[in-house]
This record gives sequence, C-alpha cells and structure tokens, in this order.
Amino acid sequence: MPEHGSIAGIRNVTVVGGGVIGASWTALFLARGLSVIVSDPQPGIDEAALGQIAEAAPSLKALGLDTSRLTDRLAFEPDLATAVRAADLVQENGPERLELKHEMWRTIEENAPATALLATSTSGIPATEIATALKDPGRLVVGHPFNPPHLVPLVEVVPGERTSDETVERARAFYRALGKRPQVLRKEVPGFVANRLQSALFRECVHLVSEGVVTMQELDDIVTSSIGQRWAVAGPFRSFHLGGGEGGMPHFMDHFGIGMERRWAAMLQEKVAFDEPTKRLLTEQAKDFGGTVDELAAERDRKQIALMRALGESFAD
Amino acid sequence: MPEHGSIAGIRNVTVVGGGVIGASWTALFLARGLSVIVSDPQPGIDEAALGQIAEAAPSLKALGLDTSRLTDRLAFEPDLATAVRAADLVQENGPERLELKHEMWRTIEENAPATALLATSTSGIPATEIATALKDPGRLVVGHPFNPPHLVPLVEVVPGERTSDETVERARAFYRALGKRPQVLRKEVPGFVANRLQSALFRECVHLVSEGVVTMQELDDIVTSSIGQRWAVAGPFRSFHLGGGEGGMPHFMDHFGIGMERRWAAMLQEKVAFDEPTKRLLTEQAKDFGGTVDELAAERDRKQIALMRALGESFAD
Repeated sequence: MPEHGSIAGIRNVTVVGGGVIGASWTALFLARGLSVIVSDPQPGIDEAALGQIAEAAPSLKALGLDTSRLTDRLAFEPDLATAVRAADLVQENGPERLELKHEMWRTIEENAPATALLATSTSGIPATEIATALKDPGRLVVGHPFNPPHLVPLVEVVPGERTSDETVERARAFYRALGKRPQVLRKEVPGFVANRLQSALFRECVHLVSEGVVTMQELDDIVTSSIGQRWAVAGPFRSFHLGGGEGGMPHFMDHFGIGMERRWAAMLQEKVAFDEPTKRLLTEQAKDFGGTVDELAAERDRKQIALMRALGESFAD
Repeated sequence: MPEHGSIAGIRNVTVVGGGVIGASWTALFLARGLSVIVSDPQPGIDEAALGQIAEAAPSLKALGLDTSRLTDRLAFEPDLATAVRAADLVQENGPERLELKHEMWRTIEENAPATALLATSTSGIPATEIATALKDPGRLVVGHPFNPPHLVPLVEVVPGERTSDETVERARAFYRALGKRPQVLRKEVPGFVANRLQSALFRECVHLVSEGVVTMQELDDIVTSSIGQRWAVAGPFRSFHLGGGEGGMPHFMDHFGIGMERRWAAMLQEKVAFDEPTKRLLTEQAKDFGGTVDELAAERDRKQIALMRALGESFAD
C-alpha cells in the first residue's frame, strides 16, 4: 500500500467524473499515496472505475509505484457538494458541454475549501469560458492530460484570461511533483498544443493512405521506425536544429526553408476529409491491425513503459 | 573485428559519395561485416569519412555490433568506374542534382557487374527520373534512409515506374537482413512519406511558436512527453484506432472526425512562412537549447539507443 502522503501540499483529491480519464487520474493519484473521492452521478460508475483502476495497476507497478491495496484510500460520493468539501485539489473530467461545466463548477466553488486547487481536464473548452461561472475565476486552470493520464507524462497547464499566477504555479508544481511533465501554455488556443500537432500530422497521414501511397499499417511502421523514435528523445525543433549541422537552426532554415514552404503549399492544395470512401478505406484497413483493441492497447502500453524506463521517465530506480 | 560475411547475398558494397549520409551507411555496412569501397572525387574525403566512422562507432557498439578494427575492410577509390567493378551493391549518396545523378549512374551501370543491386539514397529525386539515364531502368531503386542511416531504422524503398519487382524485393530483403526496417512505398510521391509527415507537423510547430503560444523548447518538451513517446511505439493510425475504444477507427472517425476536419480547415487559414521575423525568432530561441550541436546530437543519439534497446530494436541480446 502506498505510503499516505501529500504532494506539493495536496493530500485529498476529488476526481469529478469517473469515466476513462477520471479513473486513470484516480489510479495515479492513489498509487502516489493520495486519498481520492470520485464523484459521478452515473449508476454503476464505481464498478466501472474500479475495473479501470485494476487495469491500470500493472502499468503503474511497472513504472515503479506501489500498487498493493491501491483502493484503500478511495471513496465514491455521487453528491458533488459533499464530495468536494475536504478537497485540496479538484480534478474535473466531466462531459465537454459548457453548461454542464458551469453547473459543476458553481457547485464546486461553493462547497470546496477556499484554498483548494481547481483544475479541469477539458481538451476542448478554454478555462476563460468555464470560469465565467465562478465568483473567483482566478482559481480555475486547465490541467489537460494526454490520454491515459496515468501513463503519458504530458499535462498541458493552460491558464484562462483571469487565472491567477498563483493558481498556475500551484498546478505546475503539483503535476511536476506527481511525476508528470507539465507544460504551461502562454496563450489559450483551441485544442492546445499536442492535439493540434497530431491533427496536423494526421491530415497528411489520411492523404497518403487515401492516395494509395501506403496502407495505414505501413504508415504506422514508417512513423515508429523514424520520426516517432526521434521525437521521443528530441522534439521537432531540436531535430531540425541538429539537422542543420554546425550552423543549427539558421542553417536549416536557409537551406531547407524554401523547400519546406513549397511542400506546405502543395499540401494545402490536397483535399482531405473523412468522406464515405475514406471512412470505408480506413475501416477496412483497421482490420489488418489484428488483435482486439484491448490486446493492442496492452502491447502499446507495455512498449511505452519499457521506453519510459529506458529514458529514466519512471519512478523505478 | 566483425566477421566477414554476406548479407542477403551482398558482400562488397560501393558507397558513392562519402559525405554525411555515405559515411554513416559505410560505418553500418562495415560493422555488419561487409567490405566497402567509398568513391568520392572530393580531396580529403577519406579523412572526413574516417572521422565520421569513428564518431559512429560508439553508437554501433552500443547497438550490439562489433566495432573493433572497423576500417580493415574499407578502401577509398575516387575513380567511380574502378570503384564499382566488383560491387554487389552500389549505394549512391551524391549531390541532389539530376544531371550529376545521370552522369554517375551511367558510369555505374557501365562498370558494375550486371548482377549488382543499384540503390540511391536520394531524398528528393524520384527513381523514375534518375533511371532515364540507364539502359536498364529496372535495376534502380530508391533506398532512402532517415538520417543518420547507421542509427534510425527506417529505409524507404521507393521503386520508379520501371523498377523491376525483383530489384524492389532484393533491396527490401537486403535492408531487412542488415537490421533496418525497410518500407516499400506503393507510389512515387515527392518527399516520400516520413519527410512529408514531419513537414506537415512542423508547419503547425512554426505557427504555434510564431504566435507565442509556446517557445521552441516548450514545444519540443510537449512532443517528447506525449505524441513522440506514443508514436515511437504505436503509429498515428493505431493510436487513434485505440483512442476509439472498443469501436476502434470507425468510432474514432464518427466521434472525432468532424472536429478534426474543423481543425484542419482552421489550420489551412494560418499564414506560416520562414519570413524574416520568423527566422529571427527561431534563431534567437535556438540559443536556449544550450550545448553545442555535437553535444546535443550525442545526447539525442544516446537516448535513442537506450530506447531502441528497450524496444528490442538493436543487435544486442
């Protein structure tokens, strides 16, 4: 059983919404010794969440955490007002609908301690818009994990227009101490950064498969054997900086900038959409992945844990 | 010293062009027990190439290869006709200018054995165009490595319109047996696949930094802590397939397709270019990487080798 402790001053967490993201956050918080109350009005949510926590446990263990008696400090409380009463942190993972978020956050603000850190996992609604429901919008910040939160290190910390510096810093410090790699964004932008980047790349993926240059499986193999490996250890800017040799980024831009601009112009001309022929093609080719979604996900997570351990990004020695 | 051997029937390789790519290929071929002749008319090329091979050796050793007396089976022969006379494989890495490629390949075809496998490392010129210089265009295929070839697994095997199936299959089999992850493309397309994908993502990278959402270093950190790690172990299609849960890719497209199309439409409206303000900004921020290009490259390669070993992608047990 993980030693009961506090992380950056936070001991009691209320996870609002016990779905996929909420349950994954919960598993991580528990394995790090925090007490968690999950609040979700859905009937049967406790069973579903417990199932997911059990599924996450082997990964957390492989990352070096103690997962024995993981659920001893877990409780379920469907009533939101009651659930947040002793929270040091509220991590909200409710449905992505603004009016629902407003309702939840009003209840949270009214009932949580005035010192509680308030974070939303939203991937799509800016903190500025959610915070209009709050008396003190300075308290709310986006803490957007990359799915699943118990495994992938990134948390995008995105302040709204009125989020206080103190809230941002507390969120950053907490996620960092939790073992994540938080990144504070300097501006609110739709989709934040990681999802925008994967959308940009995915457009060209769909184009190349639609054009018959490669299959989905072949394209995936190309990525895992080249840019994926590179970007796991050095991001795109650093990669091109080093691609410029001694001259670094300036040399890269001078020598390859025009060619890349031409490529961009050509890509903008491509028609790419999830139209019926594209959907049929991708649905058909997805059958070639083999294995169930559960099996494939387990394989992916096993490999990612091996990678994280190799890069020193785990809790193991 | 690596045991002298043949790989998929190839024992003697002539590497045409001893620059960065050619020297990296050479180091790998030597560490795998092949004999290599490097042919490059540039004065001083032998010293430069030997320096690069020595730099590559520690990485090859860390990947599990024998790098003692690595250069015992290496020779330099500036005269191209002489250099290819006994070649089982010619791997050409000359300048990316069509008329030069034509001249080199005419000489190679005239002087190499009729059974030699003929491959070009070109990243930009289709095999179809290079092969117009050949009497038998069926013999030439693109074998485009991702830099550096001694380290990154991918080799894009791209047949020209007249490349024979036998040539494609021999190239694929050779690179595979060499320990690379060759991928045969089904159509010639400018930039092939990996470079197109990184260009597509990089456009959005430049946009986000230009807009002040994040710095270069921050964006790189976001990538290495999220999509980079994911795409090192599961490509973009598989990732979204698994993101769709039990419903897989069809569910993903039904639920997230429209949102992604909207994101694409918005991105197409962005103005992104390497104009003077952008160049100044990126040049300025590149200073924050710290360390020399050599130091940063060594760190990147060290991490990538750790990753490859963790994923079982090395020659080590």
